[in-house]
Amino acid sequence: MADQYAPARVGAGPPMLPSIRWDEPPEGPVLVLLDQTRLPAEETELVCTDVPALVRAIRTLAVRGAPLLGIAGAYGVALAAARGYDVEDAAERLARARPTAVNLGYGVRRAGDVYRAAVKEGAGPERAAGAALAEARRLHREDAEASARMAASGLALLDELLPGGSHRILTHCNTGALVSGGEGTAFAVALSAHRAGRLRRLWVDETRPLLQGARLTGYEAARNGMAYTLLTDNAAGSLFAAGEVDAVLIGADRIAADGSVANKVGSYPLAVLAKYHRVPFVVVAPTTTIDLDTPDGASIEVEQRPGQEVTELMAPRAVVAGAMGGGGTLVAPLGTQAYNPAFDVTPPELVTAIVTERGVLSPVTGDGIAELCAGAGQGADVRPSYG
Amino acid sequence: MADQYAPARVGAGPPMLPSIRWDEPPEGPVLVLLDQTRLPAEETELVCTDVPALVRAIRTLAVRGAPLLGIAGAYGVALAAARGYDVEDAAERLARARPTAVNLGYGVRRAGDVYRAAVKEGAGPERAAGAALAEARRLHREDAEASARMAASGLALLDELLPGGSHRILTHCNTGALVSGGEGTAFAVALSAHRAGRLRRLWVDETRPLLQGARLTGYEAARNGMAYTLLTDNAAGSLFAAGEVDAVLIGADRIAADGSVANKVGSYPLAVLAKYHRVPFVVVAPTTTIDLDTPDGASIEVEQRPGQEVTELMAPRAVVAGAMGGGGTLVAPLGTQAYNPAFDVTPPELVTAIVTERGVLSPVTGDGIAELCAGAGQGADVRPSYG
Repeated sequence: MADQYAPARVGAGPPMLPSIRWDEPPEGPVLVLLDQTRLPAEETELVCTDVPALVRAIRTLAVRGAPLLGIAGAYGVALAAARGYDVEDAAERLARARPTAVNLGYGVRRAGDVYRAAVKEGAGPERAAGAALAEARRLHREDAEASARMAASGLALLDELLPGGSHRILTHCNTGALVSGGEGTAFAVALSAHRAGRLRRLWVDETRPLLQGARLTGYEAARNGMAYTLLTDNAAGSLFAAGEVDAVLIGADRIAADGSVANKVGSYPLAVLAKYHRVPFVVVAPTTTIDLDTPDGASIEVEQRPGQEVTELMAPRAVVAGAMGGGGTLVAPLGTQAYNPAFDVTPPELVTAIVTERGVLSPVTGDGIAELCAGAGQGADVRPSYG
Repeated sequence: MADQYAPARVGAGPPMLPSIRWDEPPEGPVLVLLDQTRLPAEETELVCTDVPALVRAIRTLAVRGAPLLGIAGAYGVALAAARGYDVEDAAERLARARPTAVNLGYGVRRAGDVYRAAVKEGAGPERAAGAALAEARRLHREDAEASARMAASGLALLDELLPGGSHRILTHCNTGALVSGGEGTAFAVALSAHRAGRLRRLWVDETRPLLQGARLTGYEAARNGMAYTLLTDNAAGSLFAAGEVDAVLIGADRIAADGSVANKVGSYPLAVLAKYHRVPFVVVAPTTTIDLDTPDGASIEVEQRPGQEVTELMAPRAVVAGAMGGGGTLVAPLGTQAYNPAFDVTPPELVTAIVTERGVLSPVTGDGIAELCAGAGQGADVRPSYG
């Protein structure tokens, strides 16, 4: 069966390959990923026939981005079930593949719970696997819908915060269609501003060490015909100082119960710069990114990645393979140790607003987060006051 | 005649090649540079027989760093004089080679003025050239002495600001022996802390896009046996948040009359982070870096460098050749524009102190800068109050 999600038509160039799709060729069901380690040089797909292959794809960042990891986790459980592998073992491996993104565990749990419930109700392996797959597809669809809602709310927020409607937005890492069942989180807001004719410039942080900004956001911005400019992460300060940034829009990998936001390393310094320059710092993330079991920023486990990602320079298609096993060009003396956290944590007082599919939270407080989560399924809209 | 400056003996490894040396082989005088674009992979020397070659070396960053550029400029004038080229034309080309570092123009002017005075007094070409060379050597020696004085004052300042004596210092770009006639500016302070047993950790920002931190500061730190750790520029925020940075030490390329500091791009965001976290932000630079003709930060011309430095990934030995002419591996979509300022400007209110060879200025004010400059040759010591 062919993929049910038609590639989104974008302004420039042919449609983008879907970031993730389920396929059922005669040899058996597979999960097909757009290999993000090869972008923008090559658009190739990675076919996973089992969970270890998917775990490897997650660890090497061939598939990445909080919402997409949730979808991948759910499909992974469905894949294990459909192929008759041990579903519990698969779920455990998947949930552990990366520690910071809460969505991964969420997606795994959703498909796993449905599978277990089906088994408990007496469903045979095939029906239980079908139930898990249906749940993964539901999550995929929900994420696309959440994306569209966040894009609309985010643009309304921008228009409210920045009257005049010619937005210069700075973003970090990659938060577009490559991380989502839809058009993404922060990037989707910028894209909707672009489509509405209200995006003056998208400033794209290159996002060291793996250059997701240059490689992936650059790729998505170019394909969508947006006015974008790339910069090294450390050049953002000059843009703020020159008054060239109207708002910062980023995604999130985990939001704690107090509103602390874990996101790609480099987000926190942008939040401090934004505060210093009185520029709105807006986080765009679905409520699946909120983890009420993590009370605060200090409790968020931050993934430490191999030092080679920093000490070695790697061409795009080797970036991640190299990062795991070395093999790049050494740019520092042999034996240099590197500090390489994948994420950092921004405290709620530095976040102007969190845009979710259920509405906009501002100011960001623990109570607001709780209210947002309690409103599940009721279409609750948290009214912002931009404190 | 062999170089008169013996390579500095350092803790680990064989002595480092001098960053710059004058040589007089039978074919005629030459200026020999340690090619910094090939470090740390290779230690090779670049022999300049004329000023256009030296200008190329300056533009491609084979020789770089504010104080060293001054020395190179002075030797360049001496080289033109010694080889019988047009000295005025040479001086003009050299002074224009890079716009931000004030020292370059200063060194060119010093050797040029001495040359012109000699000619005016009736000296023949040979004697006038000899006078220019003597002046270049004087500047070289003065810079080494200034370096030693800054290292001592800087360490005393650190010990005063941070009682306890186990310093964790964050630095950006490269400010050691590779930029100086001596052991450098900010790096020299860290090195003297290391020698005194009071350096707990040197945090080295990689310094995108040309990785001078990873390549050059890593090289110098390793050779000196210092405890250092490399990080991407955007990971500094996490270190501040974790309380792992006791002080930031950076150099400067130009200090305006109001105390604004132009330095490698990425310095300003560190200053904002340091302010937010109440961590001292200390600039170490000789008074030759102060430009009283530049009234304030807004008047500092910031060099914009080619976008390929950001859009293409280059191995160390190709970093700069590639930057000038392309040829690296594209990491962003074809046609991506990049914003690539080489420097940024930190306003005086974010600078805790400026350490010079004439003493420490704190707080940093226009009056203090004027006083420091007026004290020329009188060994004036500006008393710090750490406002």
